[in-house]
Amino acid sequence: MDALEGRSPFGGLRPGIAGLLESGIVELVNYGRERDGLIPLWVGEGDLPTAPFIRAAANRGLEAGHTFYTYQRGIPALRAAVAGYLTRHYGVPVDMERILITGGGMQAIMLTLQALIDPGDELVLATPVWPNIMQSAEVIGGRLCPVAMTLDPERGWTLDLDRMFDAVGPRCKALFVNSPGNPTGAVLSRDAMLAIRDFARQRGLWIISDEVYGRLFYAGRPHQPAPSFLEIMEPEERLVVVNSFSKNWAMTGWRVGWATAPASLGQIYENLIQYNLSGVAEFMQEAALTAVTDGEADVSALIDRCRAGRDLVCDRLSTMPRVRFAKPDGAFYLFFEVDGEADSRDLAKRLVDTANVGLAPGTAFGPGGQRALRLCFACSEARLDEAMDRLQPVLT
Amino acid sequence: MDALEGRSPFGGLRPGIAGLLESGIVELVNYGRERDGLIPLWVGEGDLPTAPFIRAAANRGLEAGHTFYTYQRGIPALRAAVAGYLTRHYGVPVDMERILITGGGMQAIMLTLQALIDPGDELVLATPVWPNIMQSAEVIGGRLCPVAMTLDPERGWTLDLDRMFDAVGPRCKALFVNSPGNPTGAVLSRDAMLAIRDFARQRGLWIISDEVYGRLFYAGRPHQPAPSFLEIMEPEERLVVVNSFSKNWAMTGWRVGWATAPASLGQIYENLIQYNLSGVAEFMQEAALTAVTDGEADVSALIDRCRAGRDLVCDRLSTMPRVRFAKPDGAFYLFFEVDGEADSRDLAKRLVDTANVGLAPGTAFGPGGQRALRLCFACSEARLDEAMDRLQPVLT
Repeated sequence: MDALEGRSPFGGLRPGIAGLLESGIVELVNYGRERDGLIPLWVGEGDLPTAPFIRAAANRGLEAGHTFYTYQRGIPALRAAVAGYLTRHYGVPVDMERILITGGGMQAIMLTLQALIDPGDELVLATPVWPNIMQSAEVIGGRLCPVAMTLDPERGWTLDLDRMFDAVGPRCKALFVNSPGNPTGAVLSRDAMLAIRDFARQRGLWIISDEVYGRLFYAGRPHQPAPSFLEIMEPEERLVVVNSFSKNWAMTGWRVGWATAPASLGQIYENLIQYNLSGVAEFMQEAALTAVTDGEADVSALIDRCRAGRDLVCDRLSTMPRVRFAKPDGAFYLFFEVDGEADSRDLAKRLVDTANVGLAPGTAFGPGGQRALRLCFACSEARLDEAMDRLQPVLT
Repeated sequence: MDALEGRSPFGGLRPGIAGLLESGIVELVNYGRERDGLIPLWVGEGDLPTAPFIRAAANRGLEAGHTFYTYQRGIPALRAAVAGYLTRHYGVPVDMERILITGGGMQAIMLTLQALIDPGDELVLATPVWPNIMQSAEVIGGRLCPVAMTLDPERGWTLDLDRMFDAVGPRCKALFVNSPGNPTGAVLSRDAMLAIRDFARQRGLWIISDEVYGRLFYAGRPHQPAPSFLEIMEPEERLVVVNSFSKNWAMTGWRVGWATAPASLGQIYENLIQYNLSGVAEFMQEAALTAVTDGEADVSALIDRCRAGRDLVCDRLSTMPRVRFAKPDGAFYLFFEVDGEADSRDLAKRLVDTANVGLAPGTAFGPGGQRALRLCFACSEARLDEAMDRLQPVLT
């Protein structure tokens, strides 16, 4: 193999690509995956599989032989059903021509960045945030301008809008917003959204709004969704709203989501879908259609379950003196700090070893999150209670 | 909406992204999709759904509740089975650490380009070729250096290797090779592969080898695979082989494929999988595992069926004097020219309208293909016969 010296695989990669280190969550999950009796609260999913009636719909599609290539934008029935769902919940008409079915919310973000961000273009976003958003932007050569939120024990994780707007330079193409937020659970008010919208209009910026947790909102009327940019912007404005079947309908592993984009970009998304995945399996789309059509009771039950989980976790952690947090208004995470623990990666590993509980280290989520841990409370109360019992001796 | 003037969505896109026009295949398929009785030979898939025992495996996974997030590189059982499959068919040991499960072969290509190609880097490839390869490279800012093959009625579609090597400049990072080729059906000989390998080694280039049609080879012993770069390169060399469950196991719509890459790049692929799709559904991977483990008889039957389809189509077209082609050694396409027809897009549309047969226009496939049409012969002989009957009056 002398002839190959100096030509190792790494030598031929893009500069920087090997530096996109895994955020620490997958590494930790791999570390603890086979551990007996571990309570996994680190991943953004609940403890229940997809509802049987949704799984049955996929099987009906399989039995009917719906295994061929299909519509790249999504099957029309699903696009229409999603448009109807948004129209129902947000009280504004959403046309099915705006709906693009994607391989999960993550892929909807990647496609959107591919459409908008040239190498060197900037993306302004509030952190802590789901790290894959940052890394997907880096993969396509975008530059990140993170604006760190701060944890105020009274008001929760808060974003200073002026700081966000100050971060916008001449190369900025888009503002990325995630409300309710992962990992913080923070929810932007309608007023904050209006301010962001007005600023974006004035500067000609895109808004990429990740509203995957939009239904998991605990501060309004029962089952009222969190405020959405869909409610305050016109169909052909520079807005892409990202959503997913993962959370609302417990379909995390399926990888089915959607983008709501200006209808005039339909052909561009169709092309990008072709080059990235070439469409979502028809039988999976049929399951998603069943979910969005017949699954509203399940979504309501999930919201109630998450609210109960949030209350339980907050009650229990409030008795542990080292723990600092504010009760989140949305999503299904508590993102809390522990006094005396500066390295959340180390602490998360220690909690696997000593408490047999899996939490995600805040280091993964960018500026502002280094000291925090993310706990997903989309679980049964019994399981959460047991996890709290195990955490108590370590976090007290 | 005065405030929005001058800020149309298109204005805010990346320059060039709207110019990535759809290749013409999807446009045509959308045009003819609902046409009564049309025989669709335009898409790269057969006319049979996935085998029932594979569909049943997916349903078992669904019933077992395997709907959660899963291993980002693929479930270990599937990675091991794929490694075993390659080892069996190519006679060289392939370690499962080299196998990465992706959302289809297309996604394996996109991930590989994301790992290798910086904006401005060049990719040399022979055309005509599946257009999504070219467009995915353009999406990530790569520059294409196409080398047109020529149609020799005796030898078929041929690639001049010297012209390919001459196209390699200082910014070239990789050679993209697709053998057996889509749309040409051309197969690189072992000698040609050795020459490409030696050139790539000398210049420190990557080889991206799309071997999705590797089993559909008609020039060797019965069911012998086409030559593969796996047979002639070491595990840690700069080689990525792209493959898919789509063709061999009639799973086109599922979107499950794999890359065989240097094991040292496993973490990089794992990261890129996270940012692009976040893993292939576990129940789909379980179906793929059943396919690769128990589906060999089906692959053999597919090869036989495609060979019969190829022979039928070639026999029939050879009686139509305007049609120029050479019998392909691999894949499941015939890529033929029609004397007196310079615009294949126009001709393909005309064939939908007058013959009710769907063929893909060669304009889609880059330099060298403008005049040709692609016909997929992975169909029943009865269906192909009927298609030939309909084409005869137009192509004679």
